[in-house]
Amino acid sequence: MSSKAMDQLRSALGECVDIEAAASVLYWDQATHMPEGGAPARGRQLSTLSKIAHEKITNPKMESLLIEAENQCNDFPEDSFEHSFLRVARRNFERAIQVPGSYVKRASQLRCELYDVWTRARPDNDFKRVSSLLKENVALSVEYSSFFKGHAHVADPLIDHADEGMTAEMIKTLFSSLRPSLVNLVKEITDEKPFDDACLRQNFPLQAQWSFGEKIIRKLGYDFSRGRQDKTHHPFMTSFSIGDVRITTRFKEDDLSEGLFSTIHEAGHALYEQGINPEYEGTYLAAGVSAGVHESQSRLWENLVGRSRSFWVYFFPILKEAFPDRFRNLTLDEFYKAINRVEKTLIRTDADEVTYNLHVMLRFDFEMQMLEGKLAVEDLPEAWRERIKSDFGLIVSDDKDGVLQDVHWFSGPVGGVFQGYTIGNVLAAEIFEKVTQAIPDLQDQIAVGNFEGLLNWLTQNVYRHGSKMPAEQLIRNITSGKGLSSKPFLNYIESKYRTLLR
Amino acid sequence: MSSKAMDQLRSALGECVDIEAAASVLYWDQATHMPEGGAPARGRQLSTLSKIAHEKITNPKMESLLIEAENQCNDFPEDSFEHSFLRVARRNFERAIQVPGSYVKRASQLRCELYDVWTRARPDNDFKRVSSLLKENVALSVEYSSFFKGHAHVADPLIDHADEGMTAEMIKTLFSSLRPSLVNLVKEITDEKPFDDACLRQNFPLQAQWSFGEKIIRKLGYDFSRGRQDKTHHPFMTSFSIGDVRITTRFKEDDLSEGLFSTIHEAGHALYEQGINPEYEGTYLAAGVSAGVHESQSRLWENLVGRSRSFWVYFFPILKEAFPDRFRNLTLDEFYKAINRVEKTLIRTDADEVTYNLHVMLRFDFEMQMLEGKLAVEDLPEAWRERIKSDFGLIVSDDKDGVLQDVHWFSGPVGGVFQGYTIGNVLAAEIFEKVTQAIPDLQDQIAVGNFEGLLNWLTQNVYRHGSKMPAEQLIRNITSGKGLSSKPFLNYIESKYRTLLR
Repeated sequence: MSSKAMDQLRSALGECVDIEAAASVLYWDQATHMPEGGAPARGRQLSTLSKIAHEKITNPKMESLLIEAENQCNDFPEDSFEHSFLRVARRNFERAIQVPGSYVKRASQLRCELYDVWTRARPDNDFKRVSSLLKENVALSVEYSSFFKGHAHVADPLIDHADEGMTAEMIKTLFSSLRPSLVNLVKEITDEKPFDDACLRQNFPLQAQWSFGEKIIRKLGYDFSRGRQDKTHHPFMTSFSIGDVRITTRFKEDDLSEGLFSTIHEAGHALYEQGINPEYEGTYLAAGVSAGVHESQSRLWENLVGRSRSFWVYFFPILKEAFPDRFRNLTLDEFYKAINRVEKTLIRTDADEVTYNLHVMLRFDFEMQMLEGKLAVEDLPEAWRERIKSDFGLIVSDDKDGVLQDVHWFSGPVGGVFQGYTIGNVLAAEIFEKVTQAIPDLQDQIAVGNFEGLLNWLTQNVYRHGSKMPAEQLIRNITSGKGLSSKPFLNYIESKYRTLLR
Repeated sequence: MSSKAMDQLRSALGECVDIEAAASVLYWDQATHMPEGGAPARGRQLSTLSKIAHEKITNPKMESLLIEAENQCNDFPEDSFEHSFLRVARRNFERAIQVPGSYVKRASQLRCELYDVWTRARPDNDFKRVSSLLKENVALSVEYSSFFKGHAHVADPLIDHADEGMTAEMIKTLFSSLRPSLVNLVKEITDEKPFDDACLRQNFPLQAQWSFGEKIIRKLGYDFSRGRQDKTHHPFMTSFSIGDVRITTRFKEDDLSEGLFSTIHEAGHALYEQGINPEYEGTYLAAGVSAGVHESQSRLWENLVGRSRSFWVYFFPILKEAFPDRFRNLTLDEFYKAINRVEKTLIRTDADEVTYNLHVMLRFDFEMQMLEGKLAVEDLPEAWRERIKSDFGLIVSDDKDGVLQDVHWFSGPVGGVFQGYTIGNVLAAEIFEKVTQAIPDLQDQIAVGNFEGLLNWLTQNVYRHGSKMPAEQLIRNITSGKGLSSKPFLNYIESKYRTLLR
């Protein structure tokens, strides 16, 4: 059914996919194995690759090929591969054509340098060292936005890039629908005596943590013949093809939950990418569809599965074997409470399910203010301290536990990333509600270590589609037309904690 | 002193350097860490990168830039950076322009597939599985040669690509100058009782081998802040920049020499690349100048240093500590003899200094015959068996120890690679003779673990120049105008073994 123009377009765009995959390998290597001496050249190599991918996609020949293919293919049904392929090709082209190649190279270079400086400034607790580069990065982000016309808010193009169809206004509405209930719930929980999580803060040999984590994600369905796990400072998932989807993790010797849940989290992202229809390989359809939908899968496996009681009915005995003597006198329910302890803390990635979204809101608000020119970069650490004080009642004594903690502003655009985490939390609960309707004995399956039903449902309804349909349509399909709603998340979290507090 | 055209050319060629470095990262990853599922996409990604690098370098704009820069820079002195930069740019352009882009992509794809099949066919001892792809690879190699005019032998363009200025005729002359003496020496040595090397064939825990190897190469001067070591099936060195020069190695639990000497060998390659003048970074001058000169450095460190008695005066006590109980009753001289045992064996990479070049000659002769159409790929295993029988008196019972043993024909062109090993052996001895004249107490320095004098001399006279002058000129400079000669190698090897046999 394909046309010659279509084949040529697929081949030409396939080269862009290859270049971007090559860049991903270079990023992965930079984070996992690269010696420090490799940094300057790596920045150059990455910026060259991003410039070339951009040149290729914005080449006038690409546009004529695209037009030709569109003309020849306008009778393809809406649910066909070709239709989706052309839709995504057109969107990527329209996006790329607005952005000058010189900008792409400049942005890549600046962010590589900023990332490199940040990796050293953070342990040294030295915000000043990143300050001027971060300022440039804010300016770059505003500049990116300026290439696009007709948006209501400076952050909209950045948000749309990660979560197609979403705007700053929509995110604010979503956050407003969550915040009051979350603030109430946090108060309600933290007014009580916190759950005892001392059991998680014993000494856990790193190798045993590594093996236990691996055992879990194998069981969930992560395919090691099409992936691997390495250690990095900031855990992430990256895909070079459907056959090579890698994750990274980190472990702390005196904190079991850190490594455990970040391993499950990244495996959730990876299950998504490994589950994409192999027929999409080598095209832009072979990728998770949006930041929010991607995060819904990492958070679903990490929280709705990994922090559920059923999950530990199965894994608690295995955990006990993996760490002899550590949990001898502990009951399953005590352990379940420990991993669900709610506490106002400084670090987003360590945050529990209830306070997590408040961290996201803080970052989102600061992004908006910086992009709007209402908050200067040099005032950011102080603003951060004040906000943490008012939101959490905590003192930020070190910027490394404050404004320097997250990699995002120091490696990518400022704006357009953090909202995905909360969209993910909300959507995870919404999707899980649907799975539970479809598989009534889901909790029983999980409790005997059977994750096949869940993984199959997710693969059929989410993963295999990759980017075949826009995120919004995918979400509508899953939610029987309802679309994104914060209700299932609030129901889930309130019911979970009211049961736990009983 | 630079011109605008020169700057533009440097920046444009810098992008080609970046793309090729990115491809090297992808190759490295493929050999070290990639899960098996990654193979198909990796082949595609690599072939796209090689196609793009080729497109860039053969772009008409590149030629006009080159001409402009040449016109503006023709008054640069012959020893200037600019002069060399333009010479190498012109040579690379002239080479690349002869080769169609479609060929580059096709060759890369075929070789990726062939490599992947070979990695499984070799352990399975199944030559038939690679046979038809190898046939295609021979045809590709002949086709490559056909793009170039005016050469005397079909192998000449392939040889010139790796060892600029050399021809099949010159290699044959070199080999003829070596072969009779080597055959004599092998006979003379193997007529005697072989040195006892049982001490090398005990059990050596892999981790201890790894640490000991690392200790040695650190001492030699390999800079781990600008490199790293990983394990692979076939050890190699690869450079992504002067600040990131990596090596790989392999160890056998029941054979100390395998891992030990391959570690030193690859470190020798790496010392060369790490020693290049940092001002050349990001240009084609920042690379070893030819296969032969490169191999001279790996072999110099592996053999002339690593298999010398002085080296083990220093390292033998450290070895004893690294492997308690293994060498308790062994004298230094017994150990020295063990690592210099001469034996007719099947595997080139395990071969001693005397028989090694005979292995190379075998491969070179077969390459010539295949390229000339006088030996069919399907007859190669049998021809290999016969030749090993007549040269070494040995029976090849498995192709994995015969024709399947080396990665080269299964991952790159057939022709143009193996000659570099013997050029390297010969040149290593020639260079070492010069160093010994310059540093009369060199052996004493080595015997106390002081490698600085040697490394400095090599850095000043070889490494720092990178590809600034052609290999031939570099060799003339080092050898006071004499050029490549097999005499120092024969002197070295004959005197070493006559002393050892005494």
